[in-house]
Amino acid sequence: MSVVVQNIERADPEVITGLAECGVATVHEAQGRKGLLASHMRPIYSGAQISGSALTISAPPGDNWMLHVAIEQLKEGDVLVLAPTSPCEDGYFGDLLATSAMVRGCRGLVIDAGVRDVRDLTKMEFPVWSKAIFAQGTVKETPGSVNVPVVCAGAHINPGDVIVADDDGVCVVRREETESVLAAARKRMANEEEKRQRLAAGELGLDIYKMRERLKEKGLKYV
Amino acid sequence: MSVVVQNIERADPEVITGLAECGVATVHEAQGRKGLLASHMRPIYSGAQISGSALTISAPPGDNWMLHVAIEQLKEGDVLVLAPTSPCEDGYFGDLLATSAMVRGCRGLVIDAGVRDVRDLTKMEFPVWSKAIFAQGTVKETPGSVNVPVVCAGAHINPGDVIVADDDGVCVVRREETESVLAAARKRMANEEEKRQRLAAGELGLDIYKMRERLKEKGLKYV
Amino acid sequence: MSVVVQNIERADPEVITGLAECGVATVHEAQGRKGLLASHMRPIYSGAQISGSALTISAPPGDNWMLHVAIEQLKEGDVLVLAPTSPCEDGYFGDLLATSAMVRGCRGLVIDAGVRDVRDLTKMEFPVWSKAIFAQGTVKETPGSVNVPVVCAGAHINPGDVIVADDDGVCVVRREETESVLAAARKRMANEEEKRQRLAAGELGLDIYKMRERLKEKGLKYV
Amino acid sequence: MSVVVQNIERADPEVITGLAECGVATVHEAQGRKGLLASHMRPIYSGAQISGSALTISAPPGDNWMLHVAIEQLKEGDVLVLAPTSPCEDGYFGDLLATSAMVRGCRGLVIDAGVRDVRDLTKMEFPVWSKAIFAQGTVKETPGSVNVPVVCAGAHINPGDVIVADDDGVCVVRREETESVLAAARKRMANEEEKRQRLAAGELGLDIYKMRERLKEKGLKYV
Amino acid sequence: MSVVVQNIERADPEVITGLAECGVATVHEAQGRKGLLASHMRPIYSGAQISGSALTISAPPGDNWMLHVAIEQLKEGDVLVLAPTSPCEDGYFGDLLATSAMVRGCRGLVIDAGVRDVRDLTKMEFPVWSKAIFAQGTVKETPGSVNVPVVCAGAHINPGDVIVADDDGVCVVRREETESVLAAARKRMANEEEKRQRLAAGELGLDIYKMRERLKEKGLKYV
Amino acid sequence: MSVVVQNIERADPEVITGLAECGVATVHEAQGRKGLLASHMRPIYSGAQISGSALTISAPPGDNWMLHVAIEQLKEGDVLVLAPTSPCEDGYFGDLLATSAMVRGCRGLVIDAGVRDVRDLTKMEFPVWSKAIFAQGTVKETPGSVNVPVVCAGAHINPGDVIVADDDGVCVVRREETESVLAAARKRMANEEEKRQRLAAGELGLDIYKMRERLKEKGLKYV
Repeated sequence: MSVVVQNIERADPEVITGLAECGVATVHEAQGRKGLLASHMRPIYSGAQISGSALTISAPPGDNWMLHVAIEQLKEGDVLVLAPTSPCEDGYFGDLLATSAMVRGCRGLVIDAGVRDVRDLTKMEFPVWSKAIFAQGTVKETPGSVNVPVVCAGAHINPGDVIVADDDGVCVVRREETESVLAAARKRMANEEEKRQRLAAGELGLDIYKMRERLKEKGLKYV
Repeated sequence: MSVVVQNIERADPEVITGLAECGVATVHEAQGRKGLLASHMRPIYSGAQISGSALTISAPPGDNWMLHVAIEQLKEGDVLVLAPTSPCEDGYFGDLLATSAMVRGCRGLVIDAGVRDVRDLTKMEFPVWSKAIFAQGTVKETPGSVNVPVVCAGAHINPGDVIVADDDGVCVVRREETESVLAAARKRMANEEEKRQRLAAGELGLDIYKMRERLKEKGLKYV
Repeated sequence: MSVVVQNIERADPEVITGLAECGVATVHEAQGRKGLLASHMRPIYSGAQISGSALTISAPPGDNWMLHVAIEQLKEGDVLVLAPTSPCEDGYFGDLLATSAMVRGCRGLVIDAGVRDVRDLTKMEFPVWSKAIFAQGTVKETPGSVNVPVVCAGAHINPGDVIVADDDGVCVVRREETESVLAAARKRMANEEEKRQRLAAGELGLDIYKMRERLKEKGLKYV
Repeated sequence: MSVVVQNIERADPEVITGLAECGVATVHEAQGRKGLLASHMRPIYSGAQISGSALTISAPPGDNWMLHVAIEQLKEGDVLVLAPTSPCEDGYFGDLLATSAMVRGCRGLVIDAGVRDVRDLTKMEFPVWSKAIFAQGTVKETPGSVNVPVVCAGAHINPGDVIVADDDGVCVVRREETESVLAAARKRMANEEEKRQRLAAGELGLDIYKMRERLKEKGLKYV
Repeated sequence: MSVVVQNIERADPEVITGLAECGVATVHEAQGRKGLLASHMRPIYSGAQISGSALTISAPPGDNWMLHVAIEQLKEGDVLVLAPTSPCEDGYFGDLLATSAMVRGCRGLVIDAGVRDVRDLTKMEFPVWSKAIFAQGTVKETPGSVNVPVVCAGAHINPGDVIVADDDGVCVVRREETESVLAAARKRMANEEEKRQRLAAGELGLDIYKMRERLKEKGLKYV
Repeated sequence: MSVVVQNIERADPEVITGLAECGVATVHEAQGRKGLLASHMRPIYSGAQISGSALTISAPPGDNWMLHVAIEQLKEGDVLVLAPTSPCEDGYFGDLLATSAMVRGCRGLVIDAGVRDVRDLTKMEFPVWSKAIFAQGTVKETPGSVNVPVVCAGAHINPGDVIVADDDGVCVVRREETESVLAAARKRMANEEEKRQRLAAGELGLDIYKMRERLKEKGLKYV
C-alpha cells in the first residue's frame, strides 16, 4: 500500500519557468478555469511566485515521516505537494526539512495541513502554501506514499504535474498540457496588456467587450 | 428584476474624507456600535484607510458581469460594494477591472467573495477588503443589479451610504447620518486623546472611569 | 463567582526570557508536544517573539470590563491572556488599553476573541495574538474573573504559567516546569543546529535518523 | 438607541397562511430568488412548516433580556426573529420563554444564535430555526431593540415582514409583497404539479424545457 | 509521558444519576454558567440523556490505540471522554469498541473527533456526542494517556469529573462540586416549575422578574 | 470543454449490491482506508444505505443545467455525483429532478453543494448526501460536463466508480477494484463478527489483539 515511485516524468524546464511568469490567475484561465487548489491555501509570506514539478506525498494525519522519504526523490525544480489522508493542520514541516529540501533544488512546499518555523522559512526564502500555520509536532510511525496521484485541497494532482503558485494561491497544470497552456497563457497576457491600456485610457469594458446589447436582451434595465 | 439605478445621492465629500481620518473603530463607536461588516472581510494589504460612497452591486455567484456595468456608474470618491446573491468566494475582480475603476476615481472595493491579482492590486495601491483571495474565474451570463440595497457580509448597505475601511475591517454609515456621526467621531477622538495621555502617565482606567464602586456592587471580590 | 486573585506566583524572569529565545515550535517539542493554543490564534503583525507570565482573564462575551481590572494587576513581564466564557470575536482591546498595559510592563495580549486598532498597536509594537481582528465594541456590565485557571483557544492556562508566542502561534508552559523545559529546549536547539549543518551539507534525514530499515519493516516499497 | 416599536403593520393572515403552504423553496423562487436566510439556520426538529409576521429583536451577544420585552409585543401569528449585534451562539431561548411565547400565539423562533432545552421545545412542538444548539446561559444587562429592521443570518428583515420556514430553512417576504408573492407561488406550484406528472411519466427536462438547442449553441458536445 | 492512571475517585452514584435527571442546561446554570463543551459536540441520535464519571483519554490525531487501553479501566457508570492532541475528525470509535465498552458498564462516549458505525450505535443505544461522523480509520502506533486531565472541546475535564449530556450538548461538573451542584440544580428546577405555571397562565417575565423599572433606567424607550 | 460522455463502463450489479450491504466504514477499511468523501457530506435523512455506479457531473457554481443533461444518461442503479467547479451551497436539486431521476432508476444523489425540498425527498425515499440544505435557486446558463473525472468533497471520482453511502457518509470504490474490495469487505465482516462475540463475552481488545507487549515497548506506564 505504501510505495515510493522513483521515476516520474517531468515537463520541460523552460515551459515550467514560463508558467511561473504567467502567474496563477492567468494560467488558471488559460487552461479553461480549472486546476485551482482551495482558497484556504495561503502563502506564509507575500511576493513568492514559483512553478515546479509536483513531487507528491500522501501522508497520514500527524505523521511527517514521508517528507524525509520524499526529499531523497527531489530533483532540481521540484515542488513538494503533501496531502494528508484525513483533515489535519499539524506542523509537518519546518526549517530543518526546508534546509534539506533546498539543498536538492526544491522550490517550495504546497501542503493541505500545517507548517511551522515560518519566520525562519521566510528568512530562507523557502515559500510555503499551507492550510495552517501551526507548531504542532508530528510522529514518524506510519508510512504513506510518494509520487502517487493525490487530491490536495480539492485538486487532483499527479506526480510530475506542474504547480504554479503566487499570492493568489496555487494552481496545477497537467504535465501533458503544459505547453499548450503556456501558449494560451502568453496569448492571454498579450491580450490583457492591450485591454489594460484601453481601460487605462478610459474606455469601458462594456464597450470593449460589446456587452450592452446582450445585457439588454437579458433584461437589464437602467432607471 | 435586474436594474441599474443611475442617480444616487451621495454625502458631502468633506464629511466623507473626515470619516476616513477617524477610522473604522471610532466611527463604529460614534454611531452607537453599529454598521460593521463581518470580521471575515480582510484587506489584501495593510495600511490602507479609506472612505467613499457605496456603489452597490448584487451579483449571482460566480458571475462578475455586473462589475463592468457598475464601473460605468462610478463617480470620483466611490467605493464598489459587491454582495453575491449566495455564498461564493470566486475571484470576481482583478487588475484589469481595477485599472478601469481607478480611471473613474474609485477608491477601493468591498466584496463578500473573492478577489485575484492581489500582487498587482497591491502595487497599484488599489485597496480591497474581501472574504477570500481566490483566482477562480467567473462567467458573464446573468445580470444582477447596481445601486440597490444589499446585505454585504452581514451589514445592510444602501447605495450612497458611506463606507469606511482600514486594517480593522469595514464599517458603513447611513448617508443621512454622516454629519452627526463625524461630529460624534471627532468628539470621541478628542476625548480619547486626553484619556491616552492620562493612561500613558500611569493612571488606571478603573480610576479614570470610576469603575471600582460599581464592580464592587456587582459582586467582584479581591482575594 | 467573580474574583480577582492578586498574588500569583511567577517563574524566574531569566528562565522566561530564555524561553522566548527558543520560540514556540522548540518549546512545544521540548515539553513533549503539548501546550499549543489552537492555530486560529494569529499575530496581528509578523516578527514579534515574546514570553511572559500569564495574567489570565475570564470574561463574558462582548464585555471587556475585566481588562481594566486586570491591568491593575499587571507586573513587569506579564502577558494578558483573555478567554471569553463563550465563543466571541468582538474587539475587547484597542490602543487605549494597550497604552495602559504598556505603562505597567505588559509584553503582549493573547485573546481568544477580537482585537481592534491594529494599525496603532502595530506602531506601538504591542503584539497581540487573537482569533479575529474586529472593531465591534463591547460593554462593561458583567464582571468576570482575573487570575483564575482558564481554557484559552483549547489550552488550559493557570495564572503564572509562561506564555511563549511568535509567528508560529502561542504555547503555554506550566510554571513549575519552566526550568526543565528551558533546559530541554536549549538542548534541542543545539542538537538541531548540528542537524541543520549536516542537512545543509547534503546528508539525508533518512540517513541521519537511520530510518531506512524501519521504513522497510513497515512495508514501504520503492518502485 | 434602545427602542420598542409597539405598533407594526402585519400582512393579511390568510395570505400568511397561504405562504406557509407553499413552503420555503417555492416562495423563494416565486419572489425572484431572494429572501433566504443563510443555510446555517437549521430547524431543531424535522417536519415543522410555518409562516408568521416577523417580530424582530436586536440583542447584544450573550444577553437575552430583549426576549422578555419582545414577548409582551407578540400577537397571534407572530414569529420571533432575533439577530445578535455580533456573532454569538449562546442559548438565548429555552422552554420557559417558549411557554410564555406560545400563550401569546407565537408560531416559532428564528435566531441567528443558540437555543437550548431542545428536547422540551420539540415535545411542546415549538419550532426553532437556529445557528446552534447550545446551553450557554445569557445575562440581562444591556437593552437592545424590538421591532426595528435587522439583518438576520444575512437577510434584511423588517418588522411585519413575513417569515416562511420549513425543513429547507427560512425565507423572508416583504410585507408589501406578500399578496403578489403568494399568487406567484401558487402559480408556480400548479405549474410544478404538471411538470411533475410529465417527469414521472418519463419525459425529460431536456425536452419539456426545450434545452437541447441552447445547450448545443453553448458548445456542449456529446461523445 | 504516556500513562494510565488506574485508580481515580468517582462521585457518589446517586448524585451522578440525579444530575442526569436535571439535564445539561439546568446543571450548567446551577453551577454558575460554566462547564459546557463547545456547541459542535452533537449527539449521533436524539433523546439520550446521561451522566457518568469521566474516564479521560488523550490520544494522538488518527490513532485510537488508547481506547482499547481505556476500556479495561472502565467501571460501571463511566463515560469515555476522548480529546485528540491536535484537531482531528477521524472515526476513532465504532460498534466493536462500543460492544466492549457496554459490557463494562460504559454509558456513552464524548469525543472531540469523529465516530463511525452510527447506525449500529443507534440500534445498540450507545450514545455518542462527537465533533463529526466520519468513517475514516485510525492507526494504533502511538500511545497517549488515560485518566489524565484533558481539554475536550474547550472544557477542562479531570478524570472522575461528572459528565452530563443530552440533546443540548455536554457539560462537565467538578467531582468535588457534584453534591452542591445537584442541590442547586434541583432547587432551580423547582423554581422553574413555578415560573412555568405562571408563564403558562399568561403572566409576563417582565412582571414576574420585575424588569420594567430597570429597563427604563437603562434607557429603553417604547414608541 | 463541455462534454457528455455517453458510454461509461459500470461494475457488476451484484458486486455493487454486495458493497451496499457492507456499508461505508467496512468498505473504506477493506480497500486500505481510502476513498472517503469529506465528513461535511451528510444524509438528508437517516437510515438509507445505498450503492451505485457514479454518474459524474461537473457544474459551475449556482448553475444546475447539467443535472437535466445528466438525467438522460442515467441507467438503472446509478448514483448522481455532482461537484461544483468552485465552492457553492446553492440548492441544485429538488423534488422535480428527483422524480425524473427515479423514473430512470437512480438510487440517490451525492452533491458537494446544496439540496432543497428535503421533506419531499424524504417522503419519496430519494436519499441525498450533501454539503448543505439550502433552498437557493440556480440558473441554467453555463454548460459543464457529464461523466468526466471529478473531485467531489475531496475524493477523486471517475464515472463508473462505485459509490457506497450510508449514515456514516460516502465512500468511492474504483470500478476496477470492486470485486477485490467486496471480497476483502466480506472477509472483514466475518472477522468482525467473531471479534464482536468475544468482546460481548467480556474479552478485551488488549488481549484479543495482543497489544499489551507492544504498548509496554512504546513506553506506556500504568500508575
